[in-house]
Amino acid sequence: MHETDWITRYIAPLVTADGAAGLRDDVALLRTIGPTLATMDTLIECVHFLPDDPLDTIGQKLLRVNVSDIHAKGAEPLEALLSIAWPVDRDERAFELLMTGIGKDLQAFGISLIGGDLVQINGPLALTLTLTGRCIAKGPVRRDGGAPGDTLLINGEIGWGGLGLAAAKAGQDPETAARYRVPAISPIGAAKTVAELAASSLDVSDGLLIDAMRLADASGCGADIRLDHVPLAAPSDQVGAILKQCTSGDDYRILISARTDQPIPGFVAIGTLTETRGLALTLAGAGVNTPSTLGFEHKG
Amino acid sequence: MHETDWITRYIAPLVTADGAAGLRDDVALLRTIGPTLATMDTLIECVHFLPDDPLDTIGQKLLRVNVSDIHAKGAEPLEALLSIAWPVDRDERAFELLMTGIGKDLQAFGISLIGGDLVQINGPLALTLTLTGRCIAKGPVRRDGGAPGDTLLINGEIGWGGLGLAAAKAGQDPETAARYRVPAISPIGAAKTVAELAASSLDVSDGLLIDAMRLADASGCGADIRLDHVPLAAPSDQVGAILKQCTSGDDYRILISARTDQPIPGFVAIGTLTETRGLALTLAGAGVNTPSTLGFEHKG
Repeated sequence: MHETDWITRYIAPLVTADGAAGLRDDVALLRTIGPTLATMDTLIECVHFLPDDPLDTIGQKLLRVNVSDIHAKGAEPLEALLSIAWPVDRDERAFELLMTGIGKDLQAFGISLIGGDLVQINGPLALTLTLTGRCIAKGPVRRDGGAPGDTLLINGEIGWGGLGLAAAKAGQDPETAARYRVPAISPIGAAKTVAELAASSLDVSDGLLIDAMRLADASGCGADIRLDHVPLAAPSDQVGAILKQCTSGDDYRILISARTDQPIPGFVAIGTLTETRGLALTLAGAGVNTPSTLGFEHKG
Repeated sequence: MHETDWITRYIAPLVTADGAAGLRDDVALLRTIGPTLATMDTLIECVHFLPDDPLDTIGQKLLRVNVSDIHAKGAEPLEALLSIAWPVDRDERAFELLMTGIGKDLQAFGISLIGGDLVQINGPLALTLTLTGRCIAKGPVRRDGGAPGDTLLINGEIGWGGLGLAAAKAGQDPETAARYRVPAISPIGAAKTVAELAASSLDVSDGLLIDAMRLADASGCGADIRLDHVPLAAPSDQVGAILKQCTSGDDYRILISARTDQPIPGFVAIGTLTETRGLALTLAGAGVNTPSTLGFEHKG
């Protein structure tokens, strides 16, 4: 790897913001118009993506997991700092492909790359992105703004992450695998809805049930989830198939609570926040036992 | 590794800023009082530190390489986002030691930890820090503000990084090794001096000669360096010993150019920016050939 050459060839062309000084300095000047958020996510080969995943899709996924966090808080993504720890045995063509994917999604989401670091690693590819965002309202919509009686709503289908991972591992059904590799994330319109109408909000990254529990816990509530109202990647009336999709994660949909009975465009009501703590699941009015694993719990 | 438990036990206690929401959300609200900078540096085991380096010193080094970038731009460090890719085979005791070092330097430099990520890696320890800073003057002091006739000044001894690395590798002279593991960095007073008096500035991370060349290049100038004026870790009148220290890197001193003949407190004049591009070295008035390697060039 020739760090300076690669930065000049593949990274610098993606840099447009004045504050980045063309990457020819050690720091960037941030755009800070109003309340500014920051989030940071790391993706590691063999942990967050498969060694065979095409590098452009890995670059897009890195952008999307971070954009999803910003959108879910009712904010618009602004600027990114990118760290790449590049395996010593990978070649320049592979690096170019990674940067193609990153460049594509920087443009798709209107994000300026303003800085970062490029280093070698004698091990798996490790990518870290820090992404800033501008709040559409006065501040971020947090997890803890919910209250008993709030309606719980989700803005897209749940289960594609898990189905796509299975397809990618099996080397089958490239269209479904693509939904794991480059997850569809909520558009900026959803972020505006969050800013205007949500009392609490988060993005469903680890599984619908575990993230619903986290939102409820943060808000000091419990949650009733009507499983038959959850829009599923693979619609089913079988409890096992439904729960599998509701706990598989990597979906990057936005779960909100709202203090309204009116329909919210783009969102579907799937339950209610309750006084009683914990999770209560129903399917067509009948109680369903809560599974022991609610999602990906970050335990190794 | 139990990510959630470790965050609760070792990372959350270091978090004090309101905007971090106690790490119980996916984003942090940045403090942005006036022009705000951001820098990002990554340290990889076996590339930027030795596998045997004590983990608390690695944590301190991570903070220091970033703080040095902020100070060198005439700014005060404010808030940090921390990504840790933790090797699957390292234990909780080691993690605690890493966080002890990070906590120590967060406090020493008055930095608030506001977010980040903790993930597993089947490979070397990989650490990334994003650090924000508040400009003391109206904006950052860049590399490109120099002009012919400016005096070049440095604010501390050069060569400790290289001498310390050699000592650490040899397992000898722990005091010198400590200067590589936990580099002394310029105090906040130096950042104020930069903000007030420097025309251009950078931190010497890759070697005095290569970084002097970068500052001169960015400013469209050349640089005359009087080697006998450079404060050295191991003072010498031998060209070889002097050049070795001036090209070894990891020193984290601030190199500035200033449009004044007056002494600048804390800084020592070591040369001049010139019309003629390139580097000209002298020792006691006599020309010295420029070595083929000016410092660490990020080539693998």
